[in-house]
Amino acid sequence: MSTIKDVAKEANVSIATVSRVINKSPKASKASIESVTLAMKKLGYRPNAAARALVSQSTQTMGVLVGDVSDPFFGSMVKAIDTIACQKGKHLLIGNGYHSAKKEREVIELLINNRCESLVIHSKSLSSEELLSFAREAPGMVLINRFIPEISDRCIALDNHRGSYLATELLVKNGHKHIGYICSNHDIEDTHQRKAGYLQALQDNDLIASETYIEYGSPDEEGGERAMTNLLAKGLPITAIAAYNDHMAAGTLSVLEENNFTIPTDISIIGFDNSLISKYLNPKLTTVRYPIQMMAEKAACLALKLANNIEAKPDTTIFAPTLVKRSSVRNIT
Amino acid sequence: MSTIKDVAKEANVSIATVSRVINKSPKASKASIESVTLAMKKLGYRPNAAARALVSQSTQTMGVLVGDVSDPFFGSMVKAIDTIACQKGKHLLIGNGYHSAKKEREVIELLINNRCESLVIHSKSLSSEELLSFAREAPGMVLINRFIPEISDRCIALDNHRGSYLATELLVKNGHKHIGYICSNHDIEDTHQRKAGYLQALQDNDLIASETYIEYGSPDEEGGERAMTNLLAKGLPITAIAAYNDHMAAGTLSVLEENNFTIPTDISIIGFDNSLISKYLNPKLTTVRYPIQMMAEKAACLALKLANNIEAKPDTTIFAPTLVKRSSVRNIT
Repeated sequence: MSTIKDVAKEANVSIATVSRVINKSPKASKASIESVTLAMKKLGYRPNAAARALVSQSTQTMGVLVGDVSDPFFGSMVKAIDTIACQKGKHLLIGNGYHSAKKEREVIELLINNRCESLVIHSKSLSSEELLSFAREAPGMVLINRFIPEISDRCIALDNHRGSYLATELLVKNGHKHIGYICSNHDIEDTHQRKAGYLQALQDNDLIASETYIEYGSPDEEGGERAMTNLLAKGLPITAIAAYNDHMAAGTLSVLEENNFTIPTDISIIGFDNSLISKYLNPKLTTVRYPIQMMAEKAACLALKLANNIEAKPDTTIFAPTLVKRSSVRNIT
Repeated sequence: MSTIKDVAKEANVSIATVSRVINKSPKASKASIESVTLAMKKLGYRPNAAARALVSQSTQTMGVLVGDVSDPFFGSMVKAIDTIACQKGKHLLIGNGYHSAKKEREVIELLINNRCESLVIHSKSLSSEELLSFAREAPGMVLINRFIPEISDRCIALDNHRGSYLATELLVKNGHKHIGYICSNHDIEDTHQRKAGYLQALQDNDLIASETYIEYGSPDEEGGERAMTNLLAKGLPITAIAAYNDHMAAGTLSVLEENNFTIPTDISIIGFDNSLISKYLNPKLTTVRYPIQMMAEKAACLALKLANNIEAKPDTTIFAPTLVKRSSVRNIT
């Protein structure tokens, strides 16, 4: 592969001149534009993004850190961000953090080092201090699904506690007194907030809030199966289940069916996220809406504005979850 | 943000010297390493990937082009590639091509321009000629889910025709004579091959193969709903359905249930891909296994080897689909 040096030699100009031509500098003379273009063509030289970025200190790339793109929740998030990025002629650089502090740090460093001007970061494992330090370094960085008071107008988050509270309260209002909870085993804020919302709703309704009624698994179908299997083994008089998310609810449903429970006749289930799958389960899943698409679009727009030094404050920082009632919850009063 | 120039000035050395220190060149003197390191620290200068890449002509990044990461099929593919990349200390740069030639071209250019040494490309809309030209330019480029004879040992593909043939044949063997097909409306090779496999299996079994029995939609749940709704409107004596993929099958199932058909008592359904959702539908979906994880891992390993000029030929280029029998197909003989 030929280099900028080869082009300079071929065109009989300096490397700086080649650089000026590549970067369309007004200082480039017409003669040098012609000779350099000819040389580049002859050598098949591709003026690379690295060379361009070095001079302009910017790229056309928006950086995104997610937990794991293979999780449909993050898939929806990335798609919404990409929609905005495309509209603005930007490409996405996407990295997976897998809720590990080390991986999250590496991906953010990679994105900043690659001169992504705008960044949408879903970080669950880095400390607020470390994120604040990254935020100072990268003015176009926005946090999604995380709230840090010092940079509140660069955070787009969901009230997870409230979502889980609403879900549990709906079950209580339908007469359920023994409500199990299928919890994620990821040690992140979302897990703790959603679990706390479930417990709080039980307490506020004078019901027993106990660890006995909670089982854990990975936040997907298989984790839901595992947690529900363990919960069944305890032989509790459960009539309803709140799940950490819709995918765990799908696994829960599957285990209950295999054990001859009819949903919602025998046991009611409520999910969380209102992900695509929730509409296609049988029965259709009652769940909590996480407006991730709307939030991701807001975050992307905000990051682009901040990167361009346009003053911007989101009208909503903490979004409110709402109930989506379908067919998996039965009134037993 | 301080630049390499500022560091050179602060350290009282040339930019070339700073560059040598950043890139750990053996030509850098001990004194210059000390003064440059001190200056970088003082100025908070981050030696950026662009500067490093410009000199080393390589990055630690593997490039991936997919159709759309929010599609769980591509989510699984990206995850498998990322697993290999992580093992080799590489990060991923991911772009969405949305099966548009323009977008696919832009993403491949972006990845090559960002000096991704290794590339795993899922391109459906670019011509073989254009992909061959990219392949010549990027020795570490591997195609996934596409077969071009001239670079057959850099292609990892699936026999889509055979998969769909197997699926349809299974329905025929179970006594079905009126078999509908829920087809993707994306004008890509996979669509045509899978549809052709369905038609061929019908012909080989002396059954009527007709466009009347085929309806189209986007390759997701909503597309499956739409196509099945249209197929029902035709009032055909259908007893079985083959679907383009599992997500379309999920939408098909949903529409049939709403219309009081019991699956598989009234109508049998077979999907394609064996994606996660297939196990969690009710009834559990009989489908065709697409070994995408295995294929994506092979593609990633191959791309890394080729990028490092290690001679490598995959043992399998065209993978074979197999049947996964669950509970959505009934024998009616």
